[in-house]
Amino acid sequence: MSPALSQLGRRTMEPPISWLMRTALERPGLISLAAGFTDHDSLPVDEAHALLDELLGSPNTGRPALQYGSTVGDPRLRQLTAQRLAELDPATRANYAPDQLLMTHGSQQLLYMVTEALCDPGDIVLVEDPTYFVFLGIMQSHGLCGRGIRLAADGLEVGHLEETLQSLKRSGALPQVKLLYLVTYHQNPTGRTTSFEKKAAALDLLKCYERSAGHPLYLLEDAAYRELRFIGTDIPSALAAAKAGERVIYAGTYSKPFATGARIGFGLLPKPLFKVVARIKGNHDFGTANLIQQLLSRALATGQYAKHLPVLARRYAAKAQVMDQALREHFPAQVQWARPTGGLYFWVRLPRSVKSGSTSPLFSAALASQVLYVPGEMCYVTDPARRKPNHEMRLSFGNASEADIRTGIARLGLVLQQRLARAGD
Amino acid sequence: MSPALSQLGRRTMEPPISWLMRTALERPGLISLAAGFTDHDSLPVDEAHALLDELLGSPNTGRPALQYGSTVGDPRLRQLTAQRLAELDPATRANYAPDQLLMTHGSQQLLYMVTEALCDPGDIVLVEDPTYFVFLGIMQSHGLCGRGIRLAADGLEVGHLEETLQSLKRSGALPQVKLLYLVTYHQNPTGRTTSFEKKAAALDLLKCYERSAGHPLYLLEDAAYRELRFIGTDIPSALAAAKAGERVIYAGTYSKPFATGARIGFGLLPKPLFKVVARIKGNHDFGTANLIQQLLSRALATGQYAKHLPVLARRYAAKAQVMDQALREHFPAQVQWARPTGGLYFWVRLPRSVKSGSTSPLFSAALASQVLYVPGEMCYVTDPARRKPNHEMRLSFGNASEADIRTGIARLGLVLQQRLARAGD
Repeated sequence: MSPALSQLGRRTMEPPISWLMRTALERPGLISLAAGFTDHDSLPVDEAHALLDELLGSPNTGRPALQYGSTVGDPRLRQLTAQRLAELDPATRANYAPDQLLMTHGSQQLLYMVTEALCDPGDIVLVEDPTYFVFLGIMQSHGLCGRGIRLAADGLEVGHLEETLQSLKRSGALPQVKLLYLVTYHQNPTGRTTSFEKKAAALDLLKCYERSAGHPLYLLEDAAYRELRFIGTDIPSALAAAKAGERVIYAGTYSKPFATGARIGFGLLPKPLFKVVARIKGNHDFGTANLIQQLLSRALATGQYAKHLPVLARRYAAKAQVMDQALREHFPAQVQWARPTGGLYFWVRLPRSVKSGSTSPLFSAALASQVLYVPGEMCYVTDPARRKPNHEMRLSFGNASEADIRTGIARLGLVLQQRLARAGD
Repeated sequence: MSPALSQLGRRTMEPPISWLMRTALERPGLISLAAGFTDHDSLPVDEAHALLDELLGSPNTGRPALQYGSTVGDPRLRQLTAQRLAELDPATRANYAPDQLLMTHGSQQLLYMVTEALCDPGDIVLVEDPTYFVFLGIMQSHGLCGRGIRLAADGLEVGHLEETLQSLKRSGALPQVKLLYLVTYHQNPTGRTTSFEKKAAALDLLKCYERSAGHPLYLLEDAAYRELRFIGTDIPSALAAAKAGERVIYAGTYSKPFATGARIGFGLLPKPLFKVVARIKGNHDFGTANLIQQLLSRALATGQYAKHLPVLARRYAAKAQVMDQALREHFPAQVQWARPTGGLYFWVRLPRSVKSGSTSPLFSAALASQVLYVPGEMCYVTDPARRKPNHEMRLSFGNASEADIRTGIARLGLVLQQRLARAGD
């Protein structure tokens, strides 16, 4: 007798990330350029050690860290986070109130809870084309429909967003649209950063369609990679736009820039939404592990966190440079990519004739050569308006060593040369 | 313009626990006998300090602890947890496979995900009368219906479970029934422990009705307070019953017995369900904070965890003794309670004429006297077959100091004497 699953239970697929991780585990010696894991050698072991030593060195600070906290999060961490965000954005501080900040178990949890709070099966979420595949998993499990907005080098094509909204309005589907999800900094998977102007333009556009939708259209800004910049300077978040506080949901994280093993993310939400998502958080786990929140509080307050960022930036800059160099050396001339200015990923475009999907000969040949990548098609939402492109790949330089990046890219290059030679037959 | 919330978003109420916590925060000097927080003085600060010092003392162990792990959990912690459970239960080890163990961000997260995996709006969950109120919040947010099963001193009334199933069968509602939720050890809120025989009998009964339901009827055993026993000896979990592996979902936790600030819970699930809940976990957060998992792994492996349990037992035994003594001294003779053998709670029954609900004169008078309790009615599911009892209270000795327990009970006793005198007017 098999279980009588709920609709969500039946819809929820194995996340591609689990499949990729299992594939990597089953093949010792495999070089994974697929995982979104962070750099191993630069993990702040000594820093975390010293901070926890201080924290647990006295019962006065140790006991509160080992006790339950509140559902919304540690007050000091909320304060420090609000301060930090306000410092990053040269804008009115009105949008950075600590009491609209919810600390979460990774920013992923925030994405999940926002989806739960806003979306019913059949609702529509606008996403970038391509976008973060785990968010696509959340959408799929909740029975949501998607529309992909084309992506330029500086973020979404605002014209295409407008066309899409217009077409949804014409078909009467606008009331089903709940939010626009953008990964705005060093995007997963393309590495691209959305300009502030485009974020502001997107917000304005959404506003124009609210009357037809009959409700607020939110911009969910996923800034997970914001602090992993290694070239250029930070740009303001969508929160810095006029009246953004009412329509922007900002998802941030301390996991990627500090330690992914200490899962702390956060969300800054418009007040009416904050209340609802905080209630949902109460049902999920009534609050994120206090020990880790206090570790991060201390890392922020002592300046250790800020000191760690340039260390990371140097490290990822070097690894990105190695990957870029290897791609130039080993990849055929027809292959295209742009060098990222932050984050963990290269987005590589093959000639359209070469399929890169998980059932493609290229993917099998890569696996046979002991190298794993994320097939580009996994990063596209199912959209009635287009077929999923199937000639791209996401390559991560986050976790692999420099030697493995060189070897992995050389192997992939060889496999690609072979596929291209065949395609030319 | 107010947000267009999802159905879940609209249904999700503020958890009573948030309201209780806020009430406590707003009134400095208030003695809270409401919070389910654990004892502050016995939190293992030195132990956690030493374990983290070892863990982060070397990059070899420190780096993996600060890196992402896998969605299902740290392999060593899963192994140690399976071993520990098998040792607790003198039964076949078949039901304790590490690969059916999912590590979660507190056992609360497991309860949430199991509900998501199995239940659609309108489905029915059988719970104890009374039961854990945060689980009622999860049910409510998912639009579920409940039936309360009466509780005897040694656990649910099996006869009432049978009557309830029979009546659901007669009314054709059995296909909506998905699970029976029992808090089997030192129950929240009553402090009662379910005998092994009753768990086995409940499982047998559920089995009998599966054919009419058309699907498996699961027993969700919430064993959160199992290791907080201070009188008597542990009894086997439902997993020790014949064929239990196919129908028992066991929810356990390391938070309450070790440190609530380190939120680590776990679930042992039947294989087909494990797969689904693990996928849902992938969407929630793709894995619980690795740093905390490795801290717990180490606490288990070194024996620190096992050593801490008798310390806790002595502490809670003393506090329970203080509360019992204070109740005898200050509470009117008509009031009834049983001394718990573990956990954190006394369940106090007033004469039926004295209402204890959050809008009752008693509750207001208690607040005015600076003492907070959990009104019993909050712990009852909405059930068409009976009205919610409204003359009970949950008193926690977990977090309050011995002095506060004495003072708090003395204040409550006075308020009660006054209410009873009025009721007798």
